[in-house]
Amino acid sequence: MRIIHFEIRGVLGIAVDEGSGWHGLTQRDSGFPGTLPELIAQGADLLRIGRSLGQSPAIDLNAIRLLPPVPVPPKVLCVGLNYDDHLEESGLKKPAYPEIFARFATSLIPHQEPIRRPRESTALDYEAELAVVIGKPGRRISQEQALDHVAGYSLFNDATVRDFQLRTPQWTIGKNFDGTGSFGPWLVTPDAVPPGAHGLRIQGRLNGRVMQDASTDQLIFNVPALIEMISVAMSLERGDVIITGTPGGVGAARKPPVFMQPGDIFEVEIERLGILTNSVQDG
Amino acid sequence: MRIIHFEIRGVLGIAVDEGSGWHGLTQRDSGFPGTLPELIAQGADLLRIGRSLGQSPAIDLNAIRLLPPVPVPPKVLCVGLNYDDHLEESGLKKPAYPEIFARFATSLIPHQEPIRRPRESTALDYEAELAVVIGKPGRRISQEQALDHVAGYSLFNDATVRDFQLRTPQWTIGKNFDGTGSFGPWLVTPDAVPPGAHGLRIQGRLNGRVMQDASTDQLIFNVPALIEMISVAMSLERGDVIITGTPGGVGAARKPPVFMQPGDIFEVEIERLGILTNSVQDG
Repeated sequence: MRIIHFEIRGVLGIAVDEGSGWHGLTQRDSGFPGTLPELIAQGADLLRIGRSLGQSPAIDLNAIRLLPPVPVPPKVLCVGLNYDDHLEESGLKKPAYPEIFARFATSLIPHQEPIRRPRESTALDYEAELAVVIGKPGRRISQEQALDHVAGYSLFNDATVRDFQLRTPQWTIGKNFDGTGSFGPWLVTPDAVPPGAHGLRIQGRLNGRVMQDASTDQLIFNVPALIEMISVAMSLERGDVIITGTPGGVGAARKPPVFMQPGDIFEVEIERLGILTNSVQDG
Repeated sequence: MRIIHFEIRGVLGIAVDEGSGWHGLTQRDSGFPGTLPELIAQGADLLRIGRSLGQSPAIDLNAIRLLPPVPVPPKVLCVGLNYDDHLEESGLKKPAYPEIFARFATSLIPHQEPIRRPRESTALDYEAELAVVIGKPGRRISQEQALDHVAGYSLFNDATVRDFQLRTPQWTIGKNFDGTGSFGPWLVTPDAVPPGAHGLRIQGRLNGRVMQDASTDQLIFNVPALIEMISVAMSLERGDVIITGTPGGVGAARKPPVFMQPGDIFEVEIERLGILTNSVQDG
């Protein structure tokens, strides 16, 4: 099941698609079950609520504005260097442990909102990634239990201001420019994909040209491993998002480098999850 | 003026001290102006509200539980390697740009709550630091305007699980174990300290022994510089916290290393701001 968080004329709404088009409600409708981020924060049964939403009025995706599935996550944990080919092109050492850095909500944008290239740099790069949204809190979660903690999956473009990223060993600044983290278009519930979203083809396309093409089974640390290893340190909370890393083919590693320019369109596609599309503009 | 966020039998409260003891109100009292984090999030005039709270009933600090001034900040931005002597003892390269990494709210604890030494490590280190709380949002804030964006100052023990921190170049995991970021005891409004909290003595003491002893005028990137450089990338929001870095003298750099043990007491003292005290326990 796909579930969207959206806004129409300042009113929030939720809708689902189980194969027969989008159906949903807004805050103004009776029977509104809550927004998607609210339901995730409550630990609600998304499948049950989604099935009942399937009986609601049809929703025209062209008439609404999609929002990130969780616009203000308690934590956004990004994983660096988690595909071998990206590791190789980066010239960096294989991590013995996941390379974790943070994004903040101020960097997040939804599907179809332009990614902002800051005036301070022309080195704006793309990174197609699989996103995992946590639905059940926990600490020291074992790999065996890990997938019980997943509310669903989504797509992410971890767009990066490369020169700022590499100014210091900590990547936080270059990964947190406002309007650079595209997240969506929707949440896909775990029943719709293989366990851990394993074995799904993932592509990044710049103006239709395939720049990244891999499978999520190439993740060095897969979804259960990431949940186990991160939760050794910190409690995972409902609505936390883990961005699992990008495959090889990023712009900075090409000769010559290929950075995103105003007017470009970048798409992240993951099999069974959908396509996340953003243009680029100065800002 | 010092302002506390506290809890008594499940009820939240706010109190101030302007030199004649603590006075305040709880959510159950008429005239309650809101909690400290709520007021910061609203951009309220803390000095004006604080002055009127000064007429409220006396509050016994021993009867209440202090909470971090902002328990769930939108962002906690920590600065690494921001004192020359700590840089030197770390054996790392002087950063051309602030080394920023994130803490998440799941790691935060208040004054007097034990710091938790995780079962996965014995390398729990202390880091006495000056904390800056943002009161006015902004992006691309100039150094000249930066201090207008500060709601107040506080103290922080950026306790670190060193072996996890150094497993990968990204420090996020070792800096985010639950119960390792002590923040408080209170917020001190900017009128009570020199501009940018400059030139204040900062000490870290382990069981009464001085381990760190410096002045905030030794910061490589001072408060206005940090606000300017961070806000180039990201919008600062009300309630964001910048942890400005620790002076030399950390446990890991000593020969032999000195790590915190269960039963230890660590104090962070900053002139004019106060003393932040935590014991250590396994957990």
